[in-house]
Amino acid sequence: EDEFDATEHQHQRYNPLSGQWILVSPHRMKRPWSGQEEASQKEDLPEFDPSNPLCPGVTRPNGEKNPDYKSTFVFTNDFPALLEDIPVPPESDDPLFQTRGARGTCKVMCFHPKSNKTLPVMSLTEISTVINAWIDEFKKLARKYTWVQIFENKGAAMGCSNPHPHCQIWASSFLPTEPEIKDRYLREYFVIYGRPLLEDYVKRELINKERVVIENPDFLVVVPFWACYPFETMIIARDSRVKRINNLTSSQIANLSAVIKELTTKYDNLFKCSFPYSMGFHGAPTGEMLDYDDLHWTFHAIYYPPLLRSSTIRKFMVGFELLCQAQRDLTPEQAAERLRNLDGKKHYSED
Amino acid sequence: EDEFDATEHQHQRYNPLSGQWILVSPHRMKRPWSGQEEASQKEDLPEFDPSNPLCPGVTRPNGEKNPDYKSTFVFTNDFPALLEDIPVPPESDDPLFQTRGARGTCKVMCFHPKSNKTLPVMSLTEISTVINAWIDEFKKLARKYTWVQIFENKGAAMGCSNPHPHCQIWASSFLPTEPEIKDRYLREYFVIYGRPLLEDYVKRELINKERVVIENPDFLVVVPFWACYPFETMIIARDSRVKRINNLTSSQIANLSAVIKELTTKYDNLFKCSFPYSMGFHGAPTGEMLDYDDLHWTFHAIYYPPLLRSSTIRKFMVGFELLCQAQRDLTPEQAAERLRNLDGKKHYSED
Ligand SMILES: O=P(O)(O)O[C@H]1O[C@H](CO)[C@@H](O)[C@H](O)[C@H]1O
Ligand SMILES: O=P(O)(O)O[C@H]1O[C@H](CO)[C@@H](O)[C@H](O)[C@H]1O
Repeated sequence: EDEFDATEHQHQRYNPLSGQWILVSPHRMKRPWSGQEEASQKEDLPEFDPSNPLCPGVTRPNGEKNPDYKSTFVFTNDFPALLEDIPVPPESDDPLFQTRGARGTCKVMCFHPKSNKTLPVMSLTEISTVINAWIDEFKKLARKYTWVQIFENKGAAMGCSNPHPHCQIWASSFLPTEPEIKDRYLREYFVIYGRPLLEDYVKRELINKERVVIENPDFLVVVPFWACYPFETMIIARDSRVKRINNLTSSQIANLSAVIKELTTKYDNLFKCSFPYSMGFHGAPTGEMLDYDDLHWTFHAIYYPPLLRSSTIRKFMVGFELLCQAQRDLTPEQAAERLRNLDGKKHYSED
Repeated sequence: EDEFDATEHQHQRYNPLSGQWILVSPHRMKRPWSGQEEASQKEDLPEFDPSNPLCPGVTRPNGEKNPDYKSTFVFTNDFPALLEDIPVPPESDDPLFQTRGARGTCKVMCFHPKSNKTLPVMSLTEISTVINAWIDEFKKLARKYTWVQIFENKGAAMGCSNPHPHCQIWASSFLPTEPEIKDRYLREYFVIYGRPLLEDYVKRELINKERVVIENPDFLVVVPFWACYPFETMIIARDSRVKRINNLTSSQIANLSAVIKELTTKYDNLFKCSFPYSMGFHGAPTGEMLDYDDLHWTFHAIYYPPLLRSSTIRKFMVGFELLCQAQRDLTPEQAAERLRNLDGKKHYSED
């Protein structure tokens, strides 16, 4: 038998943040594709569209008029999945029909007054303004809510219903499933090793750097060893004393702004398109959990981009993935190498 | 405060098969939609397409010629994610970089020689032939492999790269993540209550039937209490002595054929389109696990259909769903009521 070669031979990798295994089948990159192709993005968005409810000065469907905003603009989602004051379901200890309450709020934040100014083409100062707006919202919501999820769905392929650069912030009275699992795994590691898992992980990734995409003094961008999506990345704070976004110092804010600009520029340059993804930040829980131990946490961001082969060919997480286990084609090391070698300074649209 | 009303007020529901919570936000059905719409299906597929590698008599890209098959046709996937004889990665006890081996095989099964004969428009006898072919393949693979996943990705929206009616069968030397979790939860319930979880669940759903879509002597079709996808359903064997697909008696095969035809007809009639979904069967593990205790298992099928509002508007599992927790809009009871009231005998194309 041949020797094992991770770029040729299927294998599984363990995600220590979720306890789940991922099937890696790199030889599968060789198959032809005749399935659905994504509609290619409209690349020539106008700066201003009077019919777009996220633009400055436009009246939204609920009758409210947006201010003539000049940088970021935050408002409560007109159709929130989480409302603040809502009756709670009766308690039940029936193991098959368990229900529990959910309170919360959903906000929308526009990043910029211009519809065609996505993060990679914004200036570092403009991105820092966005980060500061995230911190302001986070601080307000963190007092009241157990979890504050800042996330961006970008691109029609990720269900984004509006092309104007924006994110959402959903705050909930409960710790949702994914952070609950992560909190548990981070804590177990900390109990055994006495150090935050992601602090150890960053150190280890810096040794031979095969999965490193970008490094700067405060952040490391890697395609994690256990990545599911083809070009999935994490931005990890190098100082684990940063537990939540509001712990960032002003120099860390500047460095986060720099890696966001560089990473999203590389992403757009990969397939020469406005690269779709869902991304969000994870840090220690909030609300009543602000009083809990949070030594096991390290603040980080996760990017889940669906594209696989080109601007129109995505990886579908269906069938085997839904019923059995995540599966990926190219290896995380191959994805990291491609992202690392791309220009992170000059955006393809400047050509 | 008002009284709690599950069709008006957001709440969470617990999935006892996975230990995860789902956020239900029914008031959200009121929001407008301006995001991506799916390309509508080509409804007028020809019976035969000489360029389609799944059609009878066609030569596939790898040079093999399909036989002139008359009912089902099974072959090994030309681009499998799992290969049989492959070197295994070195063992490692590093908690952050764990790798393990994976062996397996991937097969493709065509259901019918005609490209336009999807399951709802096949005869009951033709569907029973498919079920018998599933059983034959399952039996062969179950001897060697720990898990045999029969699944169908249907429709371009679910990443299906070929419209000819077919499914896939992936067999693996390991118990994949989802079945591993389900095995654990089913076992825990059995240890406490002394009965299979799904046997109890079926009994409970038959009391007021608000989530029941179809019942026949051998199977119950429900929108599970904890459904994620808008019109997700389960087909559950009413007799828990059916642990795996190969335990089905001939009358159970006939009744499974009947519920598959009725359910997929209702699905197609819902939005008057060939309804996309991923579906698959789950039963007790196989291979070396054939010798394990399997009293906690009940054979069942799961359907994950992405459509939400129409043939072109789907639910996106992105952002909050990927980073935090599954979220659905209409309640499982509302979805079940719609499916229950649809015609399950006459397909919309016959109008
Ligand atoms: O083999 P297919 O049908 O081309 O591929 C499809 O199903 C597979 C199994 O669910 C997935 O891994 C692929 O992402 C999907 O496109
Ligand atoms: O609120 P939006 O952007 O219209 O909606 C989008 O993001 C939400 C949060 O991730 C998802 O629940 C929706 O399925 C998706 O379409």
